[in-house]
Amino acid sequence: MRKVLGVLAGLVLGIPGVAAERHFTLEARSSIFEVDQGVYLRGFSFNDMSPGPMLVVEEGDTVHITLRNLDNVTHGLSIHAANTQTSRFLGNVQPGETREFSFTADFPGVFMYHCAPGGHGIMAHTMGGQFGMIVVEPKEKYRMERELGRGPDLKLYIIQSEAYASGRDFYDGKALYVMFNGRNFRYVDEPIPVRPGDYLRIYFLNVGPNLTSTLHVVGGIFEYMYYQGNPKNLVVGAQTALAGPSDSWVIEWRVPPVEGDYTLVTHVFGTAIKGALGILRAKKDAPRIPEVRAEGVPGVKEIPASAKRVVDPYGLASPGHEHTVRVPLDPALAQPVAVGAKALEPLPVTVQMVGNSFYPKVLEIPVGTTVEFVNEDVFDLLEGERTGRHDAVVIDVQGPEPFVTPKLGHGERYRITFTKPGEYVYICSIHPYMKGIIRVYEPLSQRADSQ
Amino acid sequence: MRKVLGVLAGLVLGIPGVAAERHFTLEARSSIFEVDQGVYLRGFSFNDMSPGPMLVVEEGDTVHITLRNLDNVTHGLSIHAANTQTSRFLGNVQPGETREFSFTADFPGVFMYHCAPGGHGIMAHTMGGQFGMIVVEPKEKYRMERELGRGPDLKLYIIQSEAYASGRDFYDGKALYVMFNGRNFRYVDEPIPVRPGDYLRIYFLNVGPNLTSTLHVVGGIFEYMYYQGNPKNLVVGAQTALAGPSDSWVIEWRVPPVEGDYTLVTHVFGTAIKGALGILRAKKDAPRIPEVRAEGVPGVKEIPASAKRVVDPYGLASPGHEHTVRVPLDPALAQPVAVGAKALEPLPVTVQMVGNSFYPKVLEIPVGTTVEFVNEDVFDLLEGERTGRHDAVVIDVQGPEPFVTPKLGHGERYRITFTKPGEYVYICSIHPYMKGIIRVYEPLSQRADSQ
Amino acid sequence: MRKVLGVLAGLVLGIPGVAAERHFTLEARSSIFEVDQGVYLRGFSFNDMSPGPMLVVEEGDTVHITLRNLDNVTHGLSIHAANTQTSRFLGNVQPGETREFSFTADFPGVFMYHCAPGGHGIMAHTMGGQFGMIVVEPKEKYRMERELGRGPDLKLYIIQSEAYASGRDFYDGKALYVMFNGRNFRYVDEPIPVRPGDYLRIYFLNVGPNLTSTLHVVGGIFEYMYYQGNPKNLVVGAQTALAGPSDSWVIEWRVPPVEGDYTLVTHVFGTAIKGALGILRAKKDAPRIPEVRAEGVPGVKEIPASAKRVVDPYGLASPGHEHTVRVPLDPALAQPVAVGAKALEPLPVTVQMVGNSFYPKVLEIPVGTTVEFVNEDVFDLLEGERTGRHDAVVIDVQGPEPFVTPKLGHGERYRITFTKPGEYVYICSIHPYMKGIIRVYEPLSQRADSQ
Repeated sequence: MRKVLGVLAGLVLGIPGVAAERHFTLEARSSIFEVDQGVYLRGFSFNDMSPGPMLVVEEGDTVHITLRNLDNVTHGLSIHAANTQTSRFLGNVQPGETREFSFTADFPGVFMYHCAPGGHGIMAHTMGGQFGMIVVEPKEKYRMERELGRGPDLKLYIIQSEAYASGRDFYDGKALYVMFNGRNFRYVDEPIPVRPGDYLRIYFLNVGPNLTSTLHVVGGIFEYMYYQGNPKNLVVGAQTALAGPSDSWVIEWRVPPVEGDYTLVTHVFGTAIKGALGILRAKKDAPRIPEVRAEGVPGVKEIPASAKRVVDPYGLASPGHEHTVRVPLDPALAQPVAVGAKALEPLPVTVQMVGNSFYPKVLEIPVGTTVEFVNEDVFDLLEGERTGRHDAVVIDVQGPEPFVTPKLGHGERYRITFTKPGEYVYICSIHPYMKGIIRVYEPLSQRADSQ
Repeated sequence: MRKVLGVLAGLVLGIPGVAAERHFTLEARSSIFEVDQGVYLRGFSFNDMSPGPMLVVEEGDTVHITLRNLDNVTHGLSIHAANTQTSRFLGNVQPGETREFSFTADFPGVFMYHCAPGGHGIMAHTMGGQFGMIVVEPKEKYRMERELGRGPDLKLYIIQSEAYASGRDFYDGKALYVMFNGRNFRYVDEPIPVRPGDYLRIYFLNVGPNLTSTLHVVGGIFEYMYYQGNPKNLVVGAQTALAGPSDSWVIEWRVPPVEGDYTLVTHVFGTAIKGALGILRAKKDAPRIPEVRAEGVPGVKEIPASAKRVVDPYGLASPGHEHTVRVPLDPALAQPVAVGAKALEPLPVTVQMVGNSFYPKVLEIPVGTTVEFVNEDVFDLLEGERTGRHDAVVIDVQGPEPFVTPKLGHGERYRITFTKPGEYVYICSIHPYMKGIIRVYEPLSQRADSQ
Repeated sequence: MRKVLGVLAGLVLGIPGVAAERHFTLEARSSIFEVDQGVYLRGFSFNDMSPGPMLVVEEGDTVHITLRNLDNVTHGLSIHAANTQTSRFLGNVQPGETREFSFTADFPGVFMYHCAPGGHGIMAHTMGGQFGMIVVEPKEKYRMERELGRGPDLKLYIIQSEAYASGRDFYDGKALYVMFNGRNFRYVDEPIPVRPGDYLRIYFLNVGPNLTSTLHVVGGIFEYMYYQGNPKNLVVGAQTALAGPSDSWVIEWRVPPVEGDYTLVTHVFGTAIKGALGILRAKKDAPRIPEVRAEGVPGVKEIPASAKRVVDPYGLASPGHEHTVRVPLDPALAQPVAVGAKALEPLPVTVQMVGNSFYPKVLEIPVGTTVEFVNEDVFDLLEGERTGRHDAVVIDVQGPEPFVTPKLGHGERYRITFTKPGEYVYICSIHPYMKGIIRVYEPLSQRADSQ
């Protein structure tokens, strides 16, 4: 009875320390984010942001999640703050479907949530931008709060995440950008105002999906920090907080009494240089802001004509900003060549299916070239978004002729020889956002219409 | 006196908590593993498995290892549970040789062992599959066992490891597959049965050799976990366990009371997508299994004709599944070209020796091409398996003519111009499992026999 | 008053436990390091060493740093042991300028320092070799020292660092070498003498800039180790010490009582194989050395003619050791080709500006080729060394004709069509150590002087 009353009280009054009912709605969809000035990233999102909405609850709260799939592909949810079965209830959510799910936030800390349709799709969708932070505030106060007898002057919630230009790069760990809260150098463009002497609490979550981070502040030593945000996992006096993908820390630090810029940065400098650096600007009269939220900026409806670059891990980028592979006419192979008695057959040109993308995405070949599709995605069980099986199917009815490959499992190959010049636009019928182009060219002198 | 009696008693009766003598035999050899359906990996092993046999002892036990080298190259052993000199006794073990070694398991935890012939060979052989887990059960009980007053319902021993297609990829950290206990998605094919409410103890070891892991269970928060498996290194309430290569954790977690699939995964999603994901299937009536062992499946004697892919980091893969570089006849260079007054000489085509492999492994060039071998392996001290020195020596007597390079130290180069068409199969005489092919082709019209 | 006396006493007498004034001078400059036998690395340094001078102070000391810029580009300093504003005082230091800075060493541990001119330059200069270790010895004794009642027999200070062949490789995390104290396999060439039973204290700092390390000793288990070197962050009985870039550990270990080689290695084996491995040679009569310092060997004034390789992340390597890309005359594109009704335009050849280098650095193209410069550096704010903006400007007055691109922000592109054969040597006018070559060739038969 006491518990029920507590829950009601918490719901109505939001009394700290009293268990409450918390309600959140997450909407899965496709989105376009501006991740740098004039640079647009196509991907998936929750609530048209990447990171998605930040969820803050208190230890002991009952959390109710409504998950809506507003997209035309299957989505799902994994929520790391929930120590209970989730796959059965939040996996494999169909387009248009809505699911409800509740759990008790028994463990305090800083947790990741992300899309989890199941199987292969878990990794592929998280890479595409579907992740966010859920904070479970502990009943036990963090040490600096106990020592100072008050809460922090600023709560700074930071998600570090990576963007990829292709599934191949995702497999190879070659991030194109690395961001704090969804944008390159976001807090260089808009420095975070603090005051000398401020008590800061940083909630840091590295969502990856691939790279390790060591968070650091130039001019700062983290007085107290807590692995995963649990007050019991205390580390003291550290220059860096080491976090692999889905690792988190709560960090307590007092801004030194001297004005100036304190740079927040991952000390993995090959990733900081790609965008994961921001500024805490300490001034005595800095405006007071309540918090910095670990959320991305809202998506845009369409990419403006002024865009200087479009990034799409799964599909095509804007013309001129997409790596294109053009295979030259090979005169050595235009005439027969041999190794000893054995004539050398033309080597096929390979197109990989990998990380829910084709690679290369744009391929230009001379007439007569054989293309070998090979599926490098490894998880080929299940079906739909949850599988890494792929095919290649022409969609452009304006093109020279249709082609279609069988659905390929891991390591399976299929060859097509292109005898008709023209542009072939194709997708994977299982993951229709996967898109590629093959342009088959011919010397003008060989064309019937030029004779 | 008491110690001797204890040892004897332990040996005969295996009484927990009483120091015992434990005997293990490890046999180093070359093996072939099926790492995915129809995908075969050539490498090295202990006891024809990768991971090799799991060794479990108790803190205080005396451990006796017999190491046999059944291979035709030098091997060795490094065993991380032994805090004593090992290199002198277990390094540089010659083909056919047997060594004995004993140590006392003074430190509890989860440790790696791996091949360690010495120098360069330590890294090169571990990459090839020669590793395993040794567990030293602590005298001090883990916390959940103390709280529940009983041992775990299931001991789940998991090794995460990487497979590489070439030494070049090993250097670049580009794993082809990442596996739990030696096979891609092994526990998706065979889900691990558990029951809701079960007390699980996960012994997790990341052997790398390159990638960091963050182990996670979808739907789970690790109640207690212990860095390196030592009961004193406690972390509580974590969503992930961060482990670099050779790091380990003991994790204690109770399966929530709800039936369903709980997915065990590395949250480094660019590696999970390559195979490091499995399922714990919770059902009320799940069969009871005593443990899941961190051991690979036994090797196969030969690769079946139905294989869809053969991976060999050191040598050649199956035809059609090996990346082949074909250098076209360059008409611009077939005729003299110049930069200003200076004629431009043909660029040599480079073959690297790197990570005990040639790269590219298969090279096809027109007659007259100069190939430059360059040794990118850095450790060029010592000799035999223990060095990174390499040469290239033709072995195929059916080929057009023999060639041989000098033994090259790091960064050294050697050029050969190929004037005779045909197929040159070559190895490194120091590491004879390193294999490459150069095919020298000629236009059919130029051949004497076609005139 | 007591404090002032203490400071004076510490300064004069260096009494342990009494706060002292410590003075250090760091000189920023360009340097050339021999990182392997016959292998030279161009980069930046402090005091002509990489790592730079090791600074050792005691907790509570006042530390005075004099920073001189002896170079012709802007430098700076970030010093992780200082919990106070540094950017304002030590950033953006102009050529010829000297700055003074003081701080109190309030936090004990093992810290990194590195060049920090500001913005983009922080990452780019640290990658080039400008880093070192500062140790703040704690007032609280480490545990093994308390247990044994004496200090260690040997203090072993180790910095792990990476060298890159280009900014592209820096972005991709593809280190060419990984070193302990500035040289490949330095302590294999000169094993570190220890005696069985010695009490060792290892001060380990991984400066990265990209890779994670797991330090290990073959034959050893680390009895006590302390994250970041703080005595309060104790871990016991570990096979490995996990350290991301700028992470550190103090490790206490007693050499076992058996003579032999104990190998110190990062267990990230794809990096150990590139140079991060050394030997502790245990002999009963080993000479006593006071310490091993985490400092590089002094630079060389010039590269000897006997050099087998020159590495320069920003500029050009020695002829024959630099990857050169030669674009062949494409006969398919020499004549018009088409896709359907659309003529296929020649693809431009791309030169990236990335990580303060051009990529590829040497490009050879036929007359008439269009080159597209694209800036892949992301941080394009600020100016000079602190920005990632770039241009390409011909410097060689012997060349065929000048060219110059505009200053490009991130993702911006600029095309130049090369119509005049010859060699174009160019730099970035903002970062003049960035250097590239474009060689434009022509068939000899087309040359006016050959007709």
